[in-house]
Amino acid sequence: MRLATRANGTPDGELIVVSGDATSCLSAADIAPNLLAALERWEALVPMLQARAELIQAGQGDPLDPATLRAPLPRSWQWLDGSAFATHGELMQIAFGLDPIDRERPLMYQGLSDRFLGPSDDVPVPDSALGIDFEGEFGVIVDAVPMGTSVADAAQHIRLIVQINDWSLRAIAPIEMKTGFGWVQAKPACSVAPFAVTPDELGGDWRDGRVCCDLLVEWNGARFGLVNGDQMAFSFPELVAHAARTRDLVAGTIIGSGTVSNREYAERGSACISERRAIEIIAEGNPRTAFMAFGDRVRIEGRASDGSTPFGTIDQRVVQA
Amino acid sequence: MRLATRANGTPDGELIVVSGDATSCLSAADIAPNLLAALERWEALVPMLQARAELIQAGQGDPLDPATLRAPLPRSWQWLDGSAFATHGELMQIAFGLDPIDRERPLMYQGLSDRFLGPSDDVPVPDSALGIDFEGEFGVIVDAVPMGTSVADAAQHIRLIVQINDWSLRAIAPIEMKTGFGWVQAKPACSVAPFAVTPDELGGDWRDGRVCCDLLVEWNGARFGLVNGDQMAFSFPELVAHAARTRDLVAGTIIGSGTVSNREYAERGSACISERRAIEIIAEGNPRTAFMAFGDRVRIEGRASDGSTPFGTIDQRVVQA
Repeated sequence: MRLATRANGTPDGELIVVSGDATSCLSAADIAPNLLAALERWEALVPMLQARAELIQAGQGDPLDPATLRAPLPRSWQWLDGSAFATHGELMQIAFGLDPIDRERPLMYQGLSDRFLGPSDDVPVPDSALGIDFEGEFGVIVDAVPMGTSVADAAQHIRLIVQINDWSLRAIAPIEMKTGFGWVQAKPACSVAPFAVTPDELGGDWRDGRVCCDLLVEWNGARFGLVNGDQMAFSFPELVAHAARTRDLVAGTIIGSGTVSNREYAERGSACISERRAIEIIAEGNPRTAFMAFGDRVRIEGRASDGSTPFGTIDQRVVQA
Repeated sequence: MRLATRANGTPDGELIVVSGDATSCLSAADIAPNLLAALERWEALVPMLQARAELIQAGQGDPLDPATLRAPLPRSWQWLDGSAFATHGELMQIAFGLDPIDRERPLMYQGLSDRFLGPSDDVPVPDSALGIDFEGEFGVIVDAVPMGTSVADAAQHIRLIVQINDWSLRAIAPIEMKTGFGWVQAKPACSVAPFAVTPDELGGDWRDGRVCCDLLVEWNGARFGLVNGDQMAFSFPELVAHAARTRDLVAGTIIGSGTVSNREYAERGSACISERRAIEIIAEGNPRTAFMAFGDRVRIEGRASDGSTPFGTIDQRVVQA
């Protein structure tokens, strides 16, 4: 099942169910006013949402206007982002002389969740000298997860899968990282692709708790990376259980994979500029690739093994705030 | 003006206005359903809230039942905690061999904001071996703050002042800090004292953007610290402007001071166990004071220079989750 959020003048938008080919939809506002509310009563509501999806499949949907789509969750109470791709971590560690990574524990920080930009929203940044960078990644949305939930049980709480651009300001990131406190200024609002899909929608591409889809990243129309989500050192259920060790996770919590990255980066490229710069530093001593300028566009699209694009596309422009 | 939130079966509770002596109150649910909603329209609503406060002062309030009080914001979209007391930072740095602190930039992390425990709620922790610690601090609540707001303008967005217990799990904190990603497992839900007060309510104790009140901390009935909020290296307006450099701050954002700490710690004590242990390590080579055990209580109370207790009292017990 594919869900999305349509602009309706409210902070949380209107929940809609979308057809597999993303051409038709039906409102689900009578089932739950918005996706955040639906996640709070997921098990009770999901049969009704599925019935709505069947109506659409039977040809009773309305045309979908992509211009009305916001982030699936325009805001949520909690956003926890991992950094689960070992290749990315290793490249950054070598290039920037960071401390060795503890491979026994997932990396995770809490970020801004009071707003998520929509798939084609402009991205406001105050200063182009801040090292503007995209980060293509996948994420999961859970319903309420009790403190101390095991990895096996955590998998059952993963209700939806999304595709995210975790915007980063690289001139600030290492300064904040050095404090040990994590990122505030270096991490403005993320963007999210329009469709949140249930795990079954991905078929065999949801495998071992990983989103084994390709992620195509294009910067100003040129291919930057075509990476795959299968090489996470920790699975999404492991990330969820990690997050829930000492806290109950509120329904609607989004947990991110961190920048998708592959061992075959020489052929596949990267999902963020900083990783490409790290590769350049390691190979040549200095980075050649500059960060984004105002007016630059980035396009990020997940691709399933059958060639479909389950999450839709992020395609947006950086602008001066 | 003093505001509080009364339990009414909803996630956000009922907004009430409270008398200066905390004995009487009136509902403000007809003005705004809850405090988070009030902060979204603060300037428009504050005259109505003040009129309600005048009714109470004229003797028309209802009796206040302290047992019904929750955290002023039982949940909020954003919680950003600083660490603005230089003495605390220096003691921790020396005792634990941390990197030198950059004195030009405030320290800040984003923490769990989907729930704040009430002033007398039990505090659930999964394991007493995690180094259970309180952190007494002050915080401010802002209305919507645009990205790039100056320090001078930031001061105008500080609408309410609160008193917080930022619970910390010290066995995990240094492990997470070393990653540079900040704290997730080490920072479960905070607790907040019952009353949020407008800055004018503190008179001369709200000075230079600092809460110049004492903070009395008692652990199992014994005085642990009697510290004052006046020695912040960065003022609250500076913390707000720092947070807003690359993001719009959503109305209801709470920004914390970090553990209150004074240069005169030998006489005044500390507002968290970890700081006392740091002092012991520096003086004697090893810490003598153990962290909290299940069943332990902590009582934290801010005291104005006139002896009043503007925020009310946090008095709670740690329990096994």
